[in-house]
Amino acid sequence: MAVYTEVSDDDLAEFIASYDLGALLSYKGIAEGVENTNYLVHTEKGPYFLTLYEKRVAPADLPFFLGLMEHLAQAGITCPTPVRDGSGRMLRELAGKPAALVTFLEGVWIRRPQARHCWAVGQAMARLHLAGQSFKLARANALGLAGWRPLYASFRSRAEEVAPGLCAIIEQELDHLEANWPADLPRGIIHADLFPDNVFFLGDALSGLIDFYFACNDAFAYDIAATLNAWCFETDHAFNATKGQALLKGYQSARTLTGSERQALPLLARGAALRFLLTRAYDWLHTASDALVSRKDPQEYLRRLRFHRGIRSASEYGLEDPA
Amino acid sequence: MAVYTEVSDDDLAEFIASYDLGALLSYKGIAEGVENTNYLVHTEKGPYFLTLYEKRVAPADLPFFLGLMEHLAQAGITCPTPVRDGSGRMLRELAGKPAALVTFLEGVWIRRPQARHCWAVGQAMARLHLAGQSFKLARANALGLAGWRPLYASFRSRAEEVAPGLCAIIEQELDHLEANWPADLPRGIIHADLFPDNVFFLGDALSGLIDFYFACNDAFAYDIAATLNAWCFETDHAFNATKGQALLKGYQSARTLTGSERQALPLLARGAALRFLLTRAYDWLHTASDALVSRKDPQEYLRRLRFHRGIRSASEYGLEDPA
Repeated sequence: MAVYTEVSDDDLAEFIASYDLGALLSYKGIAEGVENTNYLVHTEKGPYFLTLYEKRVAPADLPFFLGLMEHLAQAGITCPTPVRDGSGRMLRELAGKPAALVTFLEGVWIRRPQARHCWAVGQAMARLHLAGQSFKLARANALGLAGWRPLYASFRSRAEEVAPGLCAIIEQELDHLEANWPADLPRGIIHADLFPDNVFFLGDALSGLIDFYFACNDAFAYDIAATLNAWCFETDHAFNATKGQALLKGYQSARTLTGSERQALPLLARGAALRFLLTRAYDWLHTASDALVSRKDPQEYLRRLRFHRGIRSASEYGLEDPA
Repeated sequence: MAVYTEVSDDDLAEFIASYDLGALLSYKGIAEGVENTNYLVHTEKGPYFLTLYEKRVAPADLPFFLGLMEHLAQAGITCPTPVRDGSGRMLRELAGKPAALVTFLEGVWIRRPQARHCWAVGQAMARLHLAGQSFKLARANALGLAGWRPLYASFRSRAEEVAPGLCAIIEQELDHLEANWPADLPRGIIHADLFPDNVFFLGDALSGLIDFYFACNDAFAYDIAATLNAWCFETDHAFNATKGQALLKGYQSARTLTGSERQALPLLARGAALRFLLTRAYDWLHTASDALVSRKDPQEYLRRLRFHRGIRSASEYGLEDPA
């Protein structure tokens, strides 16, 4: 949680003046956001969200991210929509950083999701998958299967600091996943980071999806697997099959899973658990305990990984038989 | 800059429901604010500012601060106005902390103030002094003359780490100020922390004063002296008499200085410079260089103090002779 880059009143007033939004009324640096600097900006036309992209986002990826948000918004997905300036540009520069202004979405994220929220996020994800099919740009999943072994190699020498025995578990898992990863699943644009803090609700109604900075092209069912991991475990680490069933039902209310996707789900869930285990372990080892950013516990995903290893069929996640 | 206390969506929705503001639409933790946790909250009735008071604010002072803001707002001073809940309470509790909801003021603070901004802040300060005269509560200035020697004593053993020779300068200054401090100046409610980041503008028009958490009863002219220190020095540390003149003219457009205030101004300016030198030196020694809060340079106020020592009359600040 941090504002990494300070923007002066003069610079921002000039920046806002290049849009058709009236005058700048106020702006506040937002504490949320691990990767980028965010400001909530009020203009005469309403509230907007300003992001300055810091070093963890590759500038070359920004046309993909901004183009995707605009494409999805035009296709009816409620997500932040990049605002174009008087010259038609979405991507700008401010205070020496790449910057973009997007629409502000009302809504709050749910700290304790219930089954009805899982249903809603499942449906929204399926709609996103469908809407993304007509998007022309593509981006490889840097944190997909091919990226896991190099990521692991970068911290292997210190991995046992995270949990004793972690090296053996990860290596065994990588071998298994690489040998069995399904190659021919339906694929397209996925969100790839659909955690509760990236999904807004107004009351029980889902009001929007945010944070598309991990979006990429990969298997739709992998996105489902990651989202099951993120939404359907309780704080005591137990899987909640009612929530899993709701999420999968919500998804299938908009897009029906294929047979190969149904079959692959347990393996994909293992992969998704490993992906978050790896990035959290990396961050854990590379973040000072007193840093600005709070560290997320890697152990949580080690437990989820162990759970998925015991799953034999997607019905154990609550997936119902095809009608 | 930090959010010290996280508030959950459920807790905040319930909190907002106890006001007559419609439903909670969104809330974002604000990065600004060294002392407290602040959220910008959107409700169906508009934007509001939520503050959770952290340990540096004494709970016993909160009725004074909130009562003062309400009093000043009713007297026509543009400042955040505490909102009363359905039971008429301004001071509440949320997430285990004292909490208050206040109106949100549009406006931005000016990073590079010009003379016209100094004029405006001078006038607003005088209006605040006048409006405060009918306020019934009182609060001693914990960071006034009587507080400086104990504050200094608390870090004397490490003071030379801040600047070589600092002990001698501070002790000499304390002796001089205690021997010469004027006892009979006009007094009342002062803001006591009217730095540029606590004054909002929309274009060139002052749109509001914020952050009343140092407000107290003390000499009006001491508030002027502190504000001269905060607004009228350039980044190269030179005093800008044009800005000083503008600030004092703006002040006198609403309230005329007495002869004793005019005479006392150079001494009060020394005192105000010492006050900020002491608190910044204390914070400098008690804040890790990599902490969440950025440290403000104490040297800046050592230079100002030296400047004020050379001043013989308030005319050198730009104060014009009485008509």
